[in-house]
Amino acid sequence: MSHAPTASLERRHQVVREASAAAALDALVVTSLPNVLYLTNFSGSAAIAVVTRDRLIFVTDSRYVTAVDEMQHASHRCPDLSVTQVEASYDQTLVELLASARLGRVGFEAVHLSVARHRWLTRALERTSAPVELVATDGLVERARVRKDAWELDTLREAGRRLSRVAAGVFEEVRAGRTEREVALAIDQRLVRAGFEKPAFDTIVAGGPNAALPHAHPGERTFIEGDLVVLDFGGVYDSYCVDLTRTVSVGRADGRARDVYAAVREAHDRAIAAVRPGESRFAIDRAAREALTARGLGDAFGHGTGHGLGIEVHEDPRISRRRPGIDDAVGDERVDVGMVFTVEPGAYLPGWGGVRIEDDVAVTPEGHEMLTAVTTELMEV
Amino acid sequence: MSHAPTASLERRHQVVREASAAAALDALVVTSLPNVLYLTNFSGSAAIAVVTRDRLIFVTDSRYVTAVDEMQHASHRCPDLSVTQVEASYDQTLVELLASARLGRVGFEAVHLSVARHRWLTRALERTSAPVELVATDGLVERARVRKDAWELDTLREAGRRLSRVAAGVFEEVRAGRTEREVALAIDQRLVRAGFEKPAFDTIVAGGPNAALPHAHPGERTFIEGDLVVLDFGGVYDSYCVDLTRTVSVGRADGRARDVYAAVREAHDRAIAAVRPGESRFAIDRAAREALTARGLGDAFGHGTGHGLGIEVHEDPRISRRRPGIDDAVGDERVDVGMVFTVEPGAYLPGWGGVRIEDDVAVTPEGHEMLTAVTTELMEV
Repeated sequence: MSHAPTASLERRHQVVREASAAAALDALVVTSLPNVLYLTNFSGSAAIAVVTRDRLIFVTDSRYVTAVDEMQHASHRCPDLSVTQVEASYDQTLVELLASARLGRVGFEAVHLSVARHRWLTRALERTSAPVELVATDGLVERARVRKDAWELDTLREAGRRLSRVAAGVFEEVRAGRTEREVALAIDQRLVRAGFEKPAFDTIVAGGPNAALPHAHPGERTFIEGDLVVLDFGGVYDSYCVDLTRTVSVGRADGRARDVYAAVREAHDRAIAAVRPGESRFAIDRAAREALTARGLGDAFGHGTGHGLGIEVHEDPRISRRRPGIDDAVGDERVDVGMVFTVEPGAYLPGWGGVRIEDDVAVTPEGHEMLTAVTTELMEV
Repeated sequence: MSHAPTASLERRHQVVREASAAAALDALVVTSLPNVLYLTNFSGSAAIAVVTRDRLIFVTDSRYVTAVDEMQHASHRCPDLSVTQVEASYDQTLVELLASARLGRVGFEAVHLSVARHRWLTRALERTSAPVELVATDGLVERARVRKDAWELDTLREAGRRLSRVAAGVFEEVRAGRTEREVALAIDQRLVRAGFEKPAFDTIVAGGPNAALPHAHPGERTFIEGDLVVLDFGGVYDSYCVDLTRTVSVGRADGRARDVYAAVREAHDRAIAAVRPGESRFAIDRAAREALTARGLGDAFGHGTGHGLGIEVHEDPRISRRRPGIDDAVGDERVDVGMVFTVEPGAYLPGWGGVRIEDDVAVTPEGHEMLTAVTTELMEV
C-alpha cells in the first residue's frame, strides 16, 4: 500500500471526475493497476476502480479484502470507497456492477484494455440489456499523474536522496576481478538496505564492450583494467520510482574514454540546463543530442534523453526526438511545474563500449530541482 | 536471451504456422513479449515478431540491435529471422512492413493488443490502401506454450532443483527477533546466489496475523515465538519461472497451528496425487478443496489451487474452481503430458494467521513428476 494522504487522493479523484464530466461520462472504469494505485493507495496485483460522480467502487478478490480493510482503517484511507468482492471473475463482476448501477456512458482506458476484454465486456453488457455504453478514453488518469502533487514530490525527493547515497557506495563495489553479476547483486542489496521496497527495474552492470548495449543483462564477464562500466539502477520507495546511472573506469581511463565521457557529461549538463516550465521536451532532447553531435557522437546516441518517473519507472513525459507523423499533432509538448523525469544521454560504440550518465529532475517554477545528487566526474576505481 | 536450441524454436514456429494456417491467416503479429521470447529466445523489453509462412520478421529498436546480432551468431540462433529496426515507432514500422509485404489476412493477439493500438493500426493500414486485414486471434502461441518441450522440461527441472536447495537454506533464516523484510532480503540473495536471474515475483514473508493475507508485503514486523510464517518465493532460471512456499513455526507450534497445517498438507498431497494426464484441472482443485472442507477450513481457502509455470510465473493451466457462466464452454479442462503447474492450497484465518504449502509438478505419461522437493513436515525453527 502507498501512503498518499486522504486529501491528496480526494484531489486526484476530483481531477479525474472533472475530466470524466468533460467527456460526458457517468463513470470511468480504471483497469490500469498504476492508475488504481494512484487513486486508492492499493498496490496489490489485481483490482478495478470505477470512479463515479460520488463514489469509488473498488473491485478486488478474496486475496486482498483483508488488506483493503486494513488500508481503510489506516490514517491514509481512500475517500468514498466501497468494496465489491469478485465472485466468478473480475469482468463478470464489473458487468453486473455497471448494469445494476445503470451507469449510462462509462469510460474505459483504451490504452490498457485489450481487444479481447473489450469484446467480452461489450457482449456481456448487451446481454444484460442495461443502458450502459462503453466509451474509449485516452489518458484521463495519466494526465493527472504527469504533474506530481506535494506529497509525491516529497516522496520522490526522499527516494532521490536515498538513491544518491546508494550510488556513492556503489563506486566501491566495482574493481578488477569482480563480475557484472556480483556487482549487480551488491547494488540490489544496497537498494533494499537503503529502504527501497525493491529495485525499480533489472539492474544494469555492463563493462567493457558490453557497455555498448544500452540494456545489457549483467553477466559472468570479469572486469579488467581500463574497462568503462555502466551502472544503471533504481529503486521503488513508497511505490514511487527513481533511476540513476553512472559510468566508472576500472583503473586509469585512456584518452578516448575521457573524450567520450566528457561529451556525454556535457550532453547531460546541457539537457538539464534546458529544463524549465514551458520548454519543449523535444528541445531538451535536442540540447543533449547537439552536444554529442558536435563531438562526432550523434549516431552513437540511439535512445531518447529521458522518461517520466512516478508510480511507473517509464511514464510521461518522454524526453525524446520528435517523431515525424507521430508527434506532430500532440498537445503535450511542453514540460510543466511538477513534472519529474530522467536526463540520461549516452554514447554506445559497438565493440568498444559505452557511457551513460543519468539523473532525475523535477520541473519547478524557477526552473528545475535535482532529485539525485552524486558526482558526475569520471571516477577511476 | 534464453537458450532454447534452434531445433526447439523451429518446432515452435511450425506449431504456430499450423495454427495460423488453420485460421486462414497469412501471418501472425506477436506483440506479447513472453510469446516473442518463446519464438525467438529474445528477452529484451521491446519487440514485435511477425510469423509469416517462411520467415520470422523481428522488429526491435536501436537499443537491442547489437544484442540480437550477437544472439544470431550464437549456437542457439532463431531460424529464418530477419531483423527490421524501428525508425519512428514500433506500430508505424509494423504498418509499413505489413503494407509493403501485402500480407493479406494478418492475425493479432486480441488478449495482448489494446483497443487504442488496434484502432491506430487499423486506421494507419487503411491509409496505406494495402490489402491487409487484421484478424483477432486467441491464444495461438499460448496453446503451444502450455505443453513444455524437452528443453523446457530440462530447464524447469534444473530450476526446481535449485529452488529446492534454496528452500532448505531458507528455514535457517527465520528466527524470533528478525523482521519479515530481513528474511525476504536474505531469500532474494539466496536466489541470485543459486544462479537465478532474479526473483520470479516479489518474495512473500508473512508472519503471525500477516500470514492471513495471501499476498502480504514483507514489513517491519518482528517474529515472535509461536508465529507461523509463510515463505513464498520463486526464481527465473534461463527465462523460466519456478515457485515454492513453505510455512514454518517460530518455536513450538500450538495445537491449532498443527491442525491447520495438517489440513493444508493433506490438501496439498491429495491435489498432487490427482495429477495425471486427462484429469480435469477443476477436479485437481476439488481434491485440495474437499480436504480442507472436511476439516472445516473450506471457507479459509479463497484462492485457486495452482497456476501454470513457464516463461511467465502465472500462465495456463489454471488449477481452480469451475466458474459458472465462464468455464462452462472451454475445451481446455484436461491437463496433459508436458504441462507444468503449482499446487498451493492454503488456509487463512483473519486475525490469527495462515498456512500455505506449494510445490511445482509436471504432468508425465505415468502421472506426474515433482519439480520441487523439500520436506513438507511442519518445521519448528
